[in-house]
Order: sequence, then structure tokens, then C-alpha cells
Amino acid sequence: MKSIFTRIIEGEIPCYKIKEDEQFLAFLDVFPLRRGHVLVVPKKQVDKFFDMPDELLQGFLQFAKPIAKAIEAGFPCLRCGISVVGIEVPHAHMHLIPINSANDLNFTQAKLTTTEEELREVQEIIRSLLPLPS
Amino acid sequence: MKSIFTRIIEGEIPCYKIKEDEQFLAFLDVFPLRRGHVLVVPKKQVDKFFDMPDELLQGFLQFAKPIAKAIEAGFPCLRCGISVVGIEVPHAHMHLIPINSANDLNFTQAKLTTTEEELREVQEIIRSLLPLPS
Repeated sequence: MKSIFTRIIEGEIPCYKIKEDEQFLAFLDVFPLRRGHVLVVPKKQVDKFFDMPDELLQGFLQFAKPIAKAIEAGFPCLRCGISVVGIEVPHAHMHLIPINSANDLNFTQAKLTTTEEELREVQEIIRSLLPLPS
Repeated sequence: MKSIFTRIIEGEIPCYKIKEDEQFLAFLDVFPLRRGHVLVVPKKQVDKFFDMPDELLQGFLQFAKPIAKAIEAGFPCLRCGISVVGIEVPHAHMHLIPINSANDLNFTQAKLTTTEEELREVQEIIRSLLPLPS
């Protein structure tokens, strides 16, 4: 069965896209823990993160790096944190979140309430801080 | 200044070693959130995770993969989760934790109380489940 992320990747469900290449897609989490919260997923639907094939594990953090740097530059934070939980959606995904404390990565807390306009603004901030494609 | 992880890497401070190669070291977190909680660090002392050079970012998840698989096999859990917070120690590190819920990755909660004997047992379980070096 197609995961919700595969449906996003295939364009069936819209997303606030941040970056894309042949292997990965990054887009805003529409239920963010913090302003600037991005999801990175492999285009190949794999359930568990560490079941991704080696070439995806090799490329994952490099794909995420410029996004993490843009998050660090675009939102007041000490650094960009990472979380991989993955219990709710059976499609490997990494959360990139600007953090000022360990609580900013605490998924047991309530998510932010946000609007389409705010999400578009966050998308614009992150995209404007990504390096131009060479 | 040498981080506590560099002092561990250099053997100045002992650790419950799980796995090592030229670039990375994995060892037990002695203040675990869950039984089976492992830290993975680059041997090169870099503060922010995404400031690691490309070759370390490329190799990181592949180094971690067999450890994550051993954690998943050795401890009752839905899967191995990942957290990178990194506010307290200025040396990039990834937490690998067996999780059954998002709360198992919640660093705002109290850590487990553990003993040397229990830590040695956890070390033995994980090491016994790692593939033999080829």
C-alpha cells in the first residue's frame, strides 16, 4: 500500500516542497513541533529507516545537510536537531527541527497550530537560504 | 579543548565499546533513556552534527546500521530510533535507542538508573548480535 509520503512524492497529495533530487524529497511537516520543521524521505518506500539500501543511507545526510544549514540560518536556534521515530508512518523519514532545548525534539508534546500562510512563509525562508543548484 | 567524547576515543576515559573503525566509535550511553541506548560519534571532534565533513556524513549511517539492527534484535522494541540533540556536549553524536513510543526518544524525561553489571550485559547483547568482521 502506498504510504502518505509516497502519495506526496507522486504528487497525489500537495506539499510545501523544500528540496528534491532523484533519491530524496524534503518538505515541511504540516504538524510542526517548531517553526522550520522539515521532513526528509527517500522516494523509495521503505518502512524502517535502517532498512534503506546502502546507497540511500550513504546519501541521506548529505542531502539533508544544506537544509539543516538553512534551518539553522533561518530560525532562532542553537542548531538543527534530528529525530527518527517512524512509528506512525511506515515510510522512513527524518525530522529536521531547529532546537534550543531537548524539549524542542520531544514528540510527546502538542504540535504547533499553523496556517497555510505561515507554512508558505517558512517554506520561502528555507528555500531562499539553500545554495543555488550548480 | 578536548570533548569528553575525544577523551573516550583517546582511551583517557573508559567506555562500554560497541564498535569502532577509523572514522567512528560507538559505545553505550551510561545515562541511558532505555536499555540498549548507544552513542555514535565521529573520531574527529566536530561540534555541530551537520558541520561534519562530507566523507563522515556519507559513512555515518552505514556505520550505525548494523548497530541499529543489533539493537532491534536484542531489545523488545518496534524499531531503533535516532536522536541528534547535541546541546550539552560540543562533539557531534547520534543516539540510537530501541523505541516503542515517541516518549522513548524524549530527552526531557529522567534517565534510567543502571549499574556497571547491567551496562556490561547490554554491551554483550549488542556485540553478540553484530555481524562478524569480514
